[in-house]
Amino acid sequence: MQDLFVEQLRDVYNAENQIIKALPKMVKSASSEELRDALEEHLEQTKGQSERLEEIFEELQLKARGTKCVGMEGVIDEGKELLSEDFQDSVMDAAIIAAAQKVEHYEIATYGTLRTWARRLGHERVAELLQETLDEEAQADEKLTQIAESMVNEEAVQTSR
Amino acid sequence: MQDLFVEQLRDVYNAENQIIKALPKMVKSASSEELRDALEEHLEQTKGQSERLEEIFEELQLKARGTKCVGMEGVIDEGKELLSEDFQDSVMDAAIIAAAQKVEHYEIATYGTLRTWARRLGHERVAELLQETLDEEAQADEKLTQIAESMVNEEAVQTSR
Repeated sequence: MQDLFVEQLRDVYNAENQIIKALPKMVKSASSEELRDALEEHLEQTKGQSERLEEIFEELQLKARGTKCVGMEGVIDEGKELLSEDFQDSVMDAAIIAAAQKVEHYEIATYGTLRTWARRLGHERVAELLQETLDEEAQADEKLTQIAESMVNEEAVQTSR
Repeated sequence: MQDLFVEQLRDVYNAENQIIKALPKMVKSASSEELRDALEEHLEQTKGQSERLEEIFEELQLKARGTKCVGMEGVIDEGKELLSEDFQDSVMDAAIIAAAQKVEHYEIATYGTLRTWARRLGHERVAELLQETLDEEAQADEKLTQIAESMVNEEAVQTSR
C-alpha cells in the first residue's frame, strides 16, 4: 500500500508541474479580467501545492521526484485543443473555465484518494497537508463555477435588453 | 457558443462509451464484493447516461455522434496502468477506487459545464437531463468514497487486534 501511495504522490507532483506550465497560456488567452485574476491566483496556489508536496516527500524521507502523469497529460492536451480554436472572446473564456475545471476535478479526486490513503497508512501529518490542498482545490473549483454562472446571468441580461 | 456546446457533448458521448468499455475490466480485477457491486451498478448507470445523451442529441435535432475525448483517454490509460500492476487484493481494490474516482470527477466537471452552458443557450429541457446525470455521478463518487473509507476503518480494526 505504501508503494501505491508513493507512486500516486509522484504522479500528482508531476501533474502539479504540468499545471504550472499550462496555466500561463490559459491566462494569456482569457479576456475577462475576473477570470484572468482567478487563474493567476490559482497559479500561485499551485506553486504552493507543489512545494507542499516537497514537504510531504521530506516528511516521508523520500526524494521529491515526479513520474509522468498520463491522466493529467490527457486533460491538459484537451485544454490545449480548445485554446487553439478560433472562438470569440466570451466563448473562449467559457472554454477556458471548462478546461480549468477538468484540471481541478482531476486534482480533487487525486488528493481525496491520497488523503484517505495517508490516514490508512498512519501518516497523520501528511494527511493534514493533503487536506489543505484538497480544500484549496475545492475552493478554486467553486470560484470558477461562480465566474461561469455570472457569465450566464450577464448574457441573459444582454439578451433581454 | 452553440458550436462549443455541441463539441463538448460529442466529447462526453465518446467518453461515456470509453467508460462502458473500461468498467468491466475494473470489475474483473476487484476483490471486494461491495466494490464489484458498486462498479457493476455504475456500469448500468453509465449505459443509461449514454442513452440520455442520445436523447439530448435528438432534442437538439443532431445526430448522436462522438468525437475522441483525449482527456478521458488519458484518465483511462492511467487506470489501465494501475490494473496491470502486481498488487495484493486490498491494494488493487484501493487502486481501482482511485482510478474510478478520477473518471467520476472528470465527468462531474464536464457535466457541470454542459449544464451551465445549456442554461446559457436556453436549452432548458437539455439542462434538466444533464443535471440528472450530474447528480448520478456525484452519488457514484460519494459511494466510492464510502467504500474507500470503510476499507480504512477495517484495516484500523485489524491492525489494533
